[in-house]
Amino acid sequence: MKENIAILGSTGSIGSQALEVIKQHKDSLRAYALTAGSNTKLLSEQIKQFSPALVSVKNKNSAKILNQMFDGYELIYWGDFGNVLAATSEKVDRVVVATPGLPGIIPTIAAIEAKKKVALATKEVLVAAGNVVMDAAEKAKAQILPIDSEHSAIFQCLQNHCIEQVSKIYLTCSGGPFRGLNTEQLKSVTLQDALNHPNWKMGKKITVDSATLMNKGFEAIEAHWLFGLPMDQINIIIHPQSVIHSAVEFVDGSVIAQMGAPDMRLPIQYALLYPGRRIQNNFRKLSFADYPTLSFEEPDTETFRCLRLAIESAKSGGTYPAVLNVANDIAVEAFLNGMLPFYKIPEVVENVLAKHTPKYSPSLGDIFEADRAVRQFANLLTNLI
Amino acid sequence: MKENIAILGSTGSIGSQALEVIKQHKDSLRAYALTAGSNTKLLSEQIKQFSPALVSVKNKNSAKILNQMFDGYELIYWGDFGNVLAATSEKVDRVVVATPGLPGIIPTIAAIEAKKKVALATKEVLVAAGNVVMDAAEKAKAQILPIDSEHSAIFQCLQNHCIEQVSKIYLTCSGGPFRGLNTEQLKSVTLQDALNHPNWKMGKKITVDSATLMNKGFEAIEAHWLFGLPMDQINIIIHPQSVIHSAVEFVDGSVIAQMGAPDMRLPIQYALLYPGRRIQNNFRKLSFADYPTLSFEEPDTETFRCLRLAIESAKSGGTYPAVLNVANDIAVEAFLNGMLPFYKIPEVVENVLAKHTPKYSPSLGDIFEADRAVRQFANLLTNLI
Repeated sequence: MKENIAILGSTGSIGSQALEVIKQHKDSLRAYALTAGSNTKLLSEQIKQFSPALVSVKNKNSAKILNQMFDGYELIYWGDFGNVLAATSEKVDRVVVATPGLPGIIPTIAAIEAKKKVALATKEVLVAAGNVVMDAAEKAKAQILPIDSEHSAIFQCLQNHCIEQVSKIYLTCSGGPFRGLNTEQLKSVTLQDALNHPNWKMGKKITVDSATLMNKGFEAIEAHWLFGLPMDQINIIIHPQSVIHSAVEFVDGSVIAQMGAPDMRLPIQYALLYPGRRIQNNFRKLSFADYPTLSFEEPDTETFRCLRLAIESAKSGGTYPAVLNVANDIAVEAFLNGMLPFYKIPEVVENVLAKHTPKYSPSLGDIFEADRAVRQFANLLTNLI
Repeated sequence: MKENIAILGSTGSIGSQALEVIKQHKDSLRAYALTAGSNTKLLSEQIKQFSPALVSVKNKNSAKILNQMFDGYELIYWGDFGNVLAATSEKVDRVVVATPGLPGIIPTIAAIEAKKKVALATKEVLVAAGNVVMDAAEKAKAQILPIDSEHSAIFQCLQNHCIEQVSKIYLTCSGGPFRGLNTEQLKSVTLQDALNHPNWKMGKKITVDSATLMNKGFEAIEAHWLFGLPMDQINIIIHPQSVIHSAVEFVDGSVIAQMGAPDMRLPIQYALLYPGRRIQNNFRKLSFADYPTLSFEEPDTETFRCLRLAIESAKSGGTYPAVLNVANDIAVEAFLNGMLPFYKIPEVVENVLAKHTPKYSPSLGDIFEADRAVRQFANLLTNLI
């Protein structure tokens, strides 16, 4: 029997690649529900190709347009409601959460409570609302399957082990396009430089986050929640070739690492077919011959202050990581719009964090409120720097 | 409750390190039986330290000497009988087979049939008698726990997966002290050069086998039997730092690797405590900071012909690997005694293999007979070259 998959955020980078994986395994997977933002052009192509039973878009207007294009369709929804509907539909077995930002949180929790398997790509879900989401998962005894290559790697390395047997996690990090530069040199980097990631092809926002190493900070926070490990047991190690996707050190000193070609379709396939593994010959495979040398170095958290800020926020806890996330959002958007130089991104984040009055063990309301409070002053924040 | 361990070959390199591990975990492990060859001096020290219930030595004479030293002891045996007794004693839970050479085969099979957990270090057991031993293991539904660091690595990487999910095994190989040399340069290497292994401290025989790469060939044959994979799916990759101990590629392209400091006590501990993992802080741990670079290259099987001979023997099957083993034994002994230059070791092996009339699906008798037949002409063989 086929598994019905809901993809929240089907027109994004992860969503599109999830559809490629489904296409490759159409004997066992079906794209049952697709939700997207405003890219109705790509969405309509996906509808033609995959004939999902349920579709949702950003707003009523886009829904209308799609309704006119696809005459027979009755199940076209919009907005947060559409995402939740897709995530909880009775027919859906597994939900890919790849819709960007805080809007991913509610459908994730809804999917967990509806006992769906959740394949999670949206970082903000755990960065901002880790305590709430993991509480819900524990209550529902739901397992969250990570889609990020690093967390997928750790998940694959952990099999059969309980977390008490883990002494350390190594989260590998390519170092991004600016690895080796110092603070002074970062002052002259351009937008184009920042968007030129050495190993991974991703969206603009995450590519900039990879250049500041904020992305790795987010991933450390995600790992903290996903695997239930204190931040002190999560080590970041720079590994420019991105071949070792991450590793786990067990209490006896044995290190298990997951490796692979840098291709997101591999962790996506793993999350969609878990606990099975299926043959695939369409995506790249790793060959040691292609990588005569793998290298490792400690991250430079003086120059790449975002990484340090992320780790400190997570240690401080409460609403700090949510504020870290929104401050970074604003700063990166300003950078992408040419309003803020690259090197000032951590400055914005640091200033916002310094002014934040945290709530601990925050409710979802507290988290959204912390986000809203910062976002309100977005223009002010980047103009002040 | 403590597990009772029998160590066959307790005075060798693996046996002594197994005792160190037992000492570190004496709350849960007990050295119940120790068997050794003629090193009664070390054995008597081990008896004093670990008070095993059962002891066995090479011959009746050594047993007498020990009997005089340890007045209260009644359970001092000798020879093959002593090994089998230790391997099958009712009180024994787990048997470490680390006694060198073909004499390890019978006690291994005895232990399997007596439903003991078998932690296997002796390469010859599977190289020469893989079909017989694995048949016995299958019949008894016994799992063999590998002690070799490479096989322990593969075993750790495989957890929870069936062999059908495996597309490839990567057996890593340091390359030994002569990595990078050509056939001409091998002509002038000395015994001392050959005994100078870059990463591992081991016995003389295995150190020479590591220098010729015959050891890696043996390991490939062991992996073939242990994990039930055809030789074509076993890839040898040179990795001079010996940090990645081996890796498994699954059908979906994901590669799981096991890494660790090059310290045999880690895989020994794993085999003694499996399926548990226990904290240990006495042995070295891996730090990526200590290994800024890991490198990989294809093996040079033109120069290191022993590796090719081993793989070809395994593909030919039958008694060929047993003959490979004995021919190599004779050649290495001749080299250790200064009777044969290093570069002639593969020549001896190749000549013996060429003259062998194989038996397929051999019985234990066929295997011992093939061994005996070659050993008979040992002097002749090395003198002819």
